[in-house]
Amino acid sequence: MKNYEIAFQGEHYAFSEIAAKKFLGEATICHPRETFEQVFQSVKEKNPPLGIIPIENTLSGSIHQNYDLLLENSVRIVGEVNLRIELHLIAKPDVEFPQVRTIYSHPAAIGQCRNFWKKNPAIKIVPTYDTAGSVKIIAEKGLTNAAAIASRQAAEDYNMNILFSEIEDYPENYTRFLIISTEPFNFGEVNKTSIVFATKHIPGALFKSLSVFFLRDLNLLKIESRPLRGKPWQYIFYLDFAGSTEQDACKNALRHLEEIAEFIKMLGSYPASQ
Amino acid sequence: MKNYEIAFQGEHYAFSEIAAKKFLGEATICHPRETFEQVFQSVKEKNPPLGIIPIENTLSGSIHQNYDLLLENSVRIVGEVNLRIELHLIAKPDVEFPQVRTIYSHPAAIGQCRNFWKKNPAIKIVPTYDTAGSVKIIAEKGLTNAAAIASRQAAEDYNMNILFSEIEDYPENYTRFLIISTEPFNFGEVNKTSIVFATKHIPGALFKSLSVFFLRDLNLLKIESRPLRGKPWQYIFYLDFAGSTEQDACKNALRHLEEIAEFIKMLGSYPASQ
Repeated sequence: MKNYEIAFQGEHYAFSEIAAKKFLGEATICHPRETFEQVFQSVKEKNPPLGIIPIENTLSGSIHQNYDLLLENSVRIVGEVNLRIELHLIAKPDVEFPQVRTIYSHPAAIGQCRNFWKKNPAIKIVPTYDTAGSVKIIAEKGLTNAAAIASRQAAEDYNMNILFSEIEDYPENYTRFLIISTEPFNFGEVNKTSIVFATKHIPGALFKSLSVFFLRDLNLLKIESRPLRGKPWQYIFYLDFAGSTEQDACKNALRHLEEIAEFIKMLGSYPASQ
Repeated sequence: MKNYEIAFQGEHYAFSEIAAKKFLGEATICHPRETFEQVFQSVKEKNPPLGIIPIENTLSGSIHQNYDLLLENSVRIVGEVNLRIELHLIAKPDVEFPQVRTIYSHPAAIGQCRNFWKKNPAIKIVPTYDTAGSVKIIAEKGLTNAAAIASRQAAEDYNMNILFSEIEDYPENYTRFLIISTEPFNFGEVNKTSIVFATKHIPGALFKSLSVFFLRDLNLLKIESRPLRGKPWQYIFYLDFAGSTEQDACKNALRHLEEIAEFIKMLGSYPASQ
């Protein structure tokens, strides 16, 4: 089996890295980057040739910053992976819960454990830059009165103990990640396509745009409008549909859409996540 | 002029309160609540009869938590207001920028000032529960080596000085807020309607759903799909369109949509924000 290399934003054992290994295998070599911009830059320099970015979360929605980076950069989506975000309370092996006075984690993770905070109002919360980084802090400082909220993998890597598992408020907490590259990759049957387009300022523009798919029996998998500020009544649309651009029906639909849209950017055709 | 009373989530001088006063006037009496759930509960108990909630941000997208609360609670949207989110660096009047060693703010505000952090890597960041609350901390403790990132109103209320104004990365940072109630309110010409609906699992369901508006020349202002987890190929849709449910075209469109949709929830007809 080939050992892929991929760039991700965050520290080792961040959810992006876990998603990358779920998709590409445990032997994958994951290169941490500080920002999403740096992930895109790495991919464009083929150093490494693959990158992974979160694109939407079931609770917090689409990550517009990464849609914007997909629009600005010449990279293609070559795969996708959905990851359940499970949050665990993690401490040193000899520490029991009553000893815990302080809990470290990323603000997004803290915000997803409100029920836990309500039940434990005396615990001090310390926001940090990263979930896995919070476990690192506790491990390196040897703290016995503190815990972190992070992934199971982060706990295991630092030989820590899980005090409580899955303390997040909503189990339906999934993040969808995209695999990006400037090169073609074969990760299975290509059956999903993502585009971004803007409609012209004409009556029924969106309806006409969607008709190009309906008329060819292509199923829509995601649609989201985003207003163009300063241009009232004009929008860009994120659209995913079932099909590959290698298929005639898709080619025809996209050619038809070009007649209607102000612009279209192809983000890529790739195998849909199961 | 009537003095309205309204519930909002956060501390005084939070952006929700600023938005409420922009919409209802400076004399409005704003009641802080800890959570969005408590804002909805207050509105249902008419204590006070109005509430304000953020529903989407141009950078971070729709706030699904509040869409879920709109689905669960019997309240109606009676108005909307868009607010530009301007972030300022705020310190005590006698403090100059070189003295600042620590900056306090809400994680969302911290995340929107990345360029500022890049230019000032030596400054320690302390995440807090609230932007306005960060100014309060500095004012009450009399800190001369710290600053906060918050609204102009928060600076003025605590007699603080703005060291740098508008330090956010993107000026196109707007939040859309909804005014909710269980009672009718007249805030101007009703010309916008919001609904949530789910499609049946039939081919072209979304296209058929949108056709009910197109066939009656009703313009769509927002559409967003959200997958129903555990129900592949099924989605709920957030939809805003131009028109009032008092108009025949809207009534007919919604009756037509009932034939196609699995369920529809009317969120309200109200005057569109300028």
